[in-house]
Amino acid sequence: MEISGYLIDIENAANTIKQQGYKTIAVQVPEGLKRSIFPLVEFLKKETGATVLVSADACFGACDVVNYELKNMDVDCVVHLGHTAISDVENFWISTMFVNAQSTLDVSKVVEKAIPSLVGKKIGLVTTAQHLHTLEKVETILRNHNLEPFIAEGDERISTKGQILGCNFSVGTKIAENVDCFLFIGSGTFHPVGLLMSARKPVIAADPYTNAVKKQEIEDMKNNMLRQRYGAIVACRSARRFGILIGVKRGQQRIKLAREIQQMLDSAGKLSLLITLDEFSPVSLQGFDIDCYVSTACPRIAIDDYLQYKKPMITPVELEIVLGRREWETYVFDEILE
Amino acid sequence: MEISGYLIDIENAANTIKQQGYKTIAVQVPEGLKRSIFPLVEFLKKETGATVLVSADACFGACDVVNYELKNMDVDCVVHLGHTAISDVENFWISTMFVNAQSTLDVSKVVEKAIPSLVGKKIGLVTTAQHLHTLEKVETILRNHNLEPFIAEGDERISTKGQILGCNFSVGTKIAENVDCFLFIGSGTFHPVGLLMSARKPVIAADPYTNAVKKQEIEDMKNNMLRQRYGAIVACRSARRFGILIGVKRGQQRIKLAREIQQMLDSAGKLSLLITLDEFSPVSLQGFDIDCYVSTACPRIAIDDYLQYKKPMITPVELEIVLGRREWETYVFDEILE
Repeated sequence: MEISGYLIDIENAANTIKQQGYKTIAVQVPEGLKRSIFPLVEFLKKETGATVLVSADACFGACDVVNYELKNMDVDCVVHLGHTAISDVENFWISTMFVNAQSTLDVSKVVEKAIPSLVGKKIGLVTTAQHLHTLEKVETILRNHNLEPFIAEGDERISTKGQILGCNFSVGTKIAENVDCFLFIGSGTFHPVGLLMSARKPVIAADPYTNAVKKQEIEDMKNNMLRQRYGAIVACRSARRFGILIGVKRGQQRIKLAREIQQMLDSAGKLSLLITLDEFSPVSLQGFDIDCYVSTACPRIAIDDYLQYKKPMITPVELEIVLGRREWETYVFDEILE
Repeated sequence: MEISGYLIDIENAANTIKQQGYKTIAVQVPEGLKRSIFPLVEFLKKETGATVLVSADACFGACDVVNYELKNMDVDCVVHLGHTAISDVENFWISTMFVNAQSTLDVSKVVEKAIPSLVGKKIGLVTTAQHLHTLEKVETILRNHNLEPFIAEGDERISTKGQILGCNFSVGTKIAENVDCFLFIGSGTFHPVGLLMSARKPVIAADPYTNAVKKQEIEDMKNNMLRQRYGAIVACRSARRFGILIGVKRGQQRIKLAREIQQMLDSAGKLSLLITLDEFSPVSLQGFDIDCYVSTACPRIAIDDYLQYKKPMITPVELEIVLGRREWETYVFDEILE
């Protein structure tokens, strides 16, 4: 079924629901698909006869999978649209289907446009879930230009070759030594900037939504981000009371790391609290008498949402710099790896 | 331990934690206690040797109990501060202690001040969790003024005599026929207005925080609220697409009612979606192409937070009026009863 520019294999999901005899299902959609949810729900109801619930809670990635919350309501199955599975986001309680939403946009035009910006001959190819199906075509285009494309397997958290997440650039770092640059297919700047910082090779971003090619902008964004991170680190140097944030969502539960951080802060004579949080928001934290936060949850929260919070928020790597355990020169991007 | 004007029997909780040998515990606090959480956590760590996590997610009532979310993180026990247990908020996954926070405020002054405003001789006494321990004293004051106090048991969702919740006024409605008026001890207007609408007897509110006594204001607030509800009902009359909201939090999961509402809307030829939501926020709903919402979750959301939402939100009772199945004259406040 095609919805809002995305091809969603809901037909296959409906078959599984029928085969398994599921009676109540919950559907999760990313924000952009909420507007068009009626025909999809009508299709599922008609095809399967099941009661269909739509989850309206934030759905930014596979980490946001609903599950145990709905067990009580006799939900037999969760249909999670628009994100691929992450291996450590296991669903113990309710069977879950990850159904990708493939963008129907043709990427060839913007890839052709990006060719002159590429550096060298060996090109690492990376993208996000909705464009993964285009990588074969992109490979062909590159070969037609006498370029040598590389698409790597990621670590165990990555389900498909060439896919990057906001918290995992392993498909890039694994081949960084072998390529001259990376071509990123997709929108937004967080992913290409993260890749640039993790893989330390030039990144050219080709956005099929806007037909824009960015290279210098990605470099500039990286420098801006580093300046902001440096500022956050400086702001935490005089902090006395630290909040160590632990994400409750599967795939972000780095509690072992949080405990190590608490020991580190204990040794440094700092007060600290271990704080769990499901939905991150400035409102949830404003009540605490705390000077700064170290987030072990999704790396995007400390970096992308930095300005929303009233107190500085840093990553675990950045805390090491604050405490003098790491040099600024060895700064690395926070990732959640296998 | 006394914290921010509340007496919290954390000593007893610590004993249980030691006896049971719990190694990792999660503490939940209402917003107002977040600021003073450090000494409480330090006490628990010192007394029990356990790792203490603090949950920062919204904690407005016993419905907000965290539980299954933390099972993965080896949490053995949840210490939920500031709310009494609700019988249908069962905790299947992790053992949970509800530890009340008793306000240390003396209520006698404001109760004395309220005496001249009381109507008749038979006075129903109601309050919220933090002042329950004062009811005996209030009874004595009333008797000293030759008044006859009544304190009722609620339905099965209410753990203590005389306690009202934002969603349950059963300690009032059960004795409404036998009393001349109600004396409410506590702050805020939602509880006394809800009681007034449910029990249909005068309500005098005595606020020990501000030393204010309100009677006419409660009546006026009720009339304001009814006008707003009438407006919401009118706004939904022309709606075509309905969102039926189901709260994911224990104690608010009225899924049976939601299904009945969907059938009612089907019969009326209206389109509808069953939507689950954990943290209610305007942002979570703004993506949907829906004309109005019927909330089966916490009644306060549709009523107290009405103006925050871009689309009208009504209660199940109000939907009956929209669909012509109930007269406005028989309007009743939405409650979640046993």
